Order: sequence, then C-alpha cells, then structure tokens
Amino acid sequence: MIVTAQEKDGTEILNITAQSGVFDPEEITTVAELWEEYRSKGPEKSGYHFIVLKDAGRVMGYACYGQRPLTVGTYDLYWIAVDPSCRRQGAGRQLLVQVEQDVCRLGGRLLVIETSGLEMYTPTRSFYLAAGYQLEATIRDFYKPGDDLVVFTKNFQTKKPILE
Amino acid sequence: MIVTAQEKDGTEILNITAQSGVFDPEEITTVAELWEEYRSKGPEKSGYHFIVLKDAGRVMGYACYGQRPLTVGTYDLYWIAVDPSCRRQGAGRQLLVQVEQDVCRLGGRLLVIETSGLEMYTPTRSFYLAAGYQLEATIRDFYKPGDDLVVFTKNFQTKKPILE
Repeated sequence: MIVTAQEKDGTEILNITAQSGVFDPEEITTVAELWEEYRSKGPEKSGYHFIVLKDAGRVMGYACYGQRPLTVGTYDLYWIAVDPSCRRQGAGRQLLVQVEQDVCRLGGRLLVIETSGLEMYTPTRSFYLAAGYQLEATIRDFYKPGDDLVVFTKNFQTKKPILE
Repeated sequence: MIVTAQEKDGTEILNITAQSGVFDPEEITTVAELWEEYRSKGPEKSGYHFIVLKDAGRVMGYACYGQRPLTVGTYDLYWIAVDPSCRRQGAGRQLLVQVEQDVCRLGGRLLVIETSGLEMYTPTRSFYLAAGYQLEATIRDFYKPGDDLVVFTKNFQTKKPILE
C-alpha cells in the first residue's frame, strides 16, 4: 500500500536512507532536511512530496518528488529508496509508478531523474531505462572528477504515465 | 570595478533584474529570494555569492553564483544581469571573468550555466560560447513545452579560467 507520508513515518524514512548503502553522509543529511521541510510545512509550501510503501504498517520504501521551480509542469524525482531487506520485490517500481501517477494528477508533464554515471549506479540506471525513461543528458565530471551527472526524463505528453 | 555586493546594493540589483526585460515575474521573485538569503546569512551560510560591477558608485550589473550541493568543486552561475543602459560595453563579460576567478579561488573546478534554448536567448548562448563554454547538455521541453534547458560548462582542469 502506498500512501502519503505521515509525521510518524519520519524515523523509518531516515533509517532506510542511512541503511541503503548508496548515500553518503551529505546526501543523508539532505534527505533529513527535505523531510523536515515537508513535515513542518506540508507538500504545497515546502515543494516536497513524500510517499511511503507500507506492508503491515512497516515502511518498506519511500520516494520524494516535487515541482521544479521556474518551470511549467516539470517535476523532479528527488529521492527513492527501499529498505535493503525488501529489495528485489518490485518496491522501487511500485513507488515509481505512484510518483508518475501523482505527477500526472498534479498536472505535471515531464519527470526528471538525476543520478550518477558511476559503475555502482549501473543497476539504478538500468531500472530507469527499463521503466521507459530516456537517457536525456550527461554532464561530465559533475559530482566530482570522473563522476558524471546522468539525467533521465519521461515526457508524459508522448509516453504513457503508467508503466504496467 | 567589481566588488562583493553590500546591503546597500540590493535595490539596484533588484531594479536591474526587473528592468532587464528577459526575466519573468517568478524569476524576479527568485532573485529577490536569493538576495535576501545572501543579505541576511552571508555567502557561506546561504551558499549564494553576489558580486556587482560599479561605475562611479552606480551598480551597472551583477552576478550570483554558488557551489552546487552534493558535488565536489562544482559551481553554478545562478544569475547574471546588466543594466539595459550599460549594455554592449563588456560588462557581462567582466562579471563572468570575475565569477570564474572567484570560483577557482574557492577551489571550484567546474562552472555550470543553465539557460533556455528559446530563440530570444540566442545572444545569451552566443555569449557563453564566445567565452569558451561547452554546450554540454540539453533537456528538451524542460522549462515548458518547446522551451529546452541548455547547459553550458567550463572545466577549469582542462580550460583556462581567465577569458582574456
């Protein structure tokens, strides 16, 4: 079951982030800051939407998305993470499907996902390609020397929003 | 003379932004928000650096840049604008040179500039190309349908920071 994140989900969201093994300390701090904005101001004022995938009341994973300022209908998937013990069960894909549906419902027309070009993110990039995303742009050495920014997009005016 | 912006420069910076003719109301509001962050917190805490080009005490133009969070040594040129009455005198280029020098002094290695692919921004894109920037990436329909994001970069590890 995927629902809008509630205040009580914060601890589990931050634990999943810390335990994911792919985020560095600065990234973990960033998620905590986005969560605090969302928790204290709500999605409209903060610009951040958090959704959680729950099973028997437990948070299995979450996603955070929001509209990109200064654009018309462009949304960013800021963050998506699944509890390491719940992987390979389609949780990430379920969350991504829900983000797409939410973005379309909110009037979004383009979803942008930024990730790294490093070898360790090959499964992440394959996940987005398999979900119908376009590898739209690369900015070489963006994160650090040798670590490119890779930008995936899905344009809902030309691609169906729902994956399945 | 290019100097770090002081509190008293705020009014002229916001006037130049409003009178530039290329920024829409949401963009003008964004500049005001960045300026308020810089003015109240300073460059380190806000992450925004403002510099102004002055002539006889008057602000002719300004630039705003800062380090991109979650990167090592990547800086964004967030904003650059010149008073319409001072154009075609090299003010924009002087400001850009100073931004490059500042970024290098701060340990930056990559400067990223985002602009629009619209026809009306052709002079802007030509300006960056003439200044040695690489057209690194395009995200189609990013700002709105038909209005692409165009990303220019200069890597100071492979290109000289100073233009002249």
